[in-house]
Amino acid sequence: MQTVSENKCFGGIQGVYSHASKACSCDMTFGLFLPEEAQHMQVPVLWYLSGLTCTHENAMTKAGAQAWAADHGIALVFPDTSPRGEGVANDDAYDLGQGAGFYVNATQDPWAPHFRMWDYIAEELPALIGEHFAVDMDRQAITGHSMGGHGALTLAMSLPSRFASVSAFAPIAHPTSSDWGRKQLGAYLGSDESTWAAHDSTLLMREKGFDGPVLIDQGGDDQFLDLLQPEALSQAMAAKRQDGAFRMQKGYDHSYFFVSSFMEDHVAFHANALFGAV
Amino acid sequence: MQTVSENKCFGGIQGVYSHASKACSCDMTFGLFLPEEAQHMQVPVLWYLSGLTCTHENAMTKAGAQAWAADHGIALVFPDTSPRGEGVANDDAYDLGQGAGFYVNATQDPWAPHFRMWDYIAEELPALIGEHFAVDMDRQAITGHSMGGHGALTLAMSLPSRFASVSAFAPIAHPTSSDWGRKQLGAYLGSDESTWAAHDSTLLMREKGFDGPVLIDQGGDDQFLDLLQPEALSQAMAAKRQDGAFRMQKGYDHSYFFVSSFMEDHVAFHANALFGAV
Repeated sequence: MQTVSENKCFGGIQGVYSHASKACSCDMTFGLFLPEEAQHMQVPVLWYLSGLTCTHENAMTKAGAQAWAADHGIALVFPDTSPRGEGVANDDAYDLGQGAGFYVNATQDPWAPHFRMWDYIAEELPALIGEHFAVDMDRQAITGHSMGGHGALTLAMSLPSRFASVSAFAPIAHPTSSDWGRKQLGAYLGSDESTWAAHDSTLLMREKGFDGPVLIDQGGDDQFLDLLQPEALSQAMAAKRQDGAFRMQKGYDHSYFFVSSFMEDHVAFHANALFGAV
Repeated sequence: MQTVSENKCFGGIQGVYSHASKACSCDMTFGLFLPEEAQHMQVPVLWYLSGLTCTHENAMTKAGAQAWAADHGIALVFPDTSPRGEGVANDDAYDLGQGAGFYVNATQDPWAPHFRMWDYIAEELPALIGEHFAVDMDRQAITGHSMGGHGALTLAMSLPSRFASVSAFAPIAHPTSSDWGRKQLGAYLGSDESTWAAHDSTLLMREKGFDGPVLIDQGGDDQFLDLLQPEALSQAMAAKRQDGAFRMQKGYDHSYFFVSSFMEDHVAFHANALFGAV
């Protein structure tokens, strides 16, 4: 593992690190914010999964999460959204290939050799971070934006007891019935749609739900509402009697101006789950 | 004036607007955050001047200022750092020409026709904003980072009673004796160094000081300490008995991770000056 950069930030350290990934068979880069408390104790961790076209850097510089993570003494992980580099397959479209890994293990060519973001986020990166940093991997929570909200919700529901809490900003909520999903799941997983269901938050919510609290924020003026299909997830949460809240935020769009506006709430929500009620 | 974008943000609106600038003889773009209160009343305003290579966008997306401005009910202006576009002079160096206006009115060719950032920030843009938005131009404060800290301090000291308060993050504090300054002041203003003094915060502080409170934050591990010369300004502030504080922040560098870490303090400092002691 190599240190790309480390900047002091809100009393802690915002680092960027790269490493040779076995899951993705290429070098991967991630951001990690460690609060001041990590200098002398293990701290809990909140994962932030990013959306289409993003790298590890977008949320790290624009979401304003470090302020609140520092307040609560929580680490933040900002993974990349796909494998990258020469020899890694790509597509001219912004929503397929590099920058658009969709948090699945691809089984189809040309994606299968590198596009294994599920294993990378679920297994390889937590092990790496647990080994090298003062992070308590028994206290994890997860959030994300758009495609990353999809990733956060599907990982959280598929890995019971891994995450104390899950939240999402404008998640791709029902990809098996949306153009943000059908295209990518078809390309990465093939035409057998039965393999797609494990990567659809609405279907997972209907089937099993999440064993902790859920917080969803969705902008009411989001320019991608038709692709995100928040109403499907909201309905599924209510029908499942899922512990949590689905909030429609009037006037907000899909941008990081929306994400940053509600970041304080999300970090506080996860802190409550990670530290237990005070 | 044209609306480039408007995004809801912390209950207010983060807008980006462009207009034909008379001062700079080209189209100019600026960001303006209006808190929710601006929907029904005039709000005070905090100017944020950016550093070398920045546009209106850097601080708007990375400084995290909107959260605190929304808390206090203050507008934020994010001007560009120079004229831009075809027909506007430029230089291959990152620290001269476009992105490096240094907040002066150039008198020398090839810069004189467009590089009039002093007039743009001091006269044209405040008039435009006062005309089009619910901003109370009798309650202004100013801050900035690096070259923008230089701009904030020189404008504040040169325009008595304009600004209730001035602050800066890692300002270029003594440009007449630094390679961040001598090169640019020479290019824009010519070789007669007597014309440079009006654009040196340390010299202005020694001569006249500021008629309100001053707050300076400087990272102790800033990679540009030799170019910024914070010790010159600190000495001048103390010798002048200037109302204010110069703070050396151990371990912080020159990045927006530093700026965002102390933004809450700066906005609160300006709010106190703009609204009066509670």
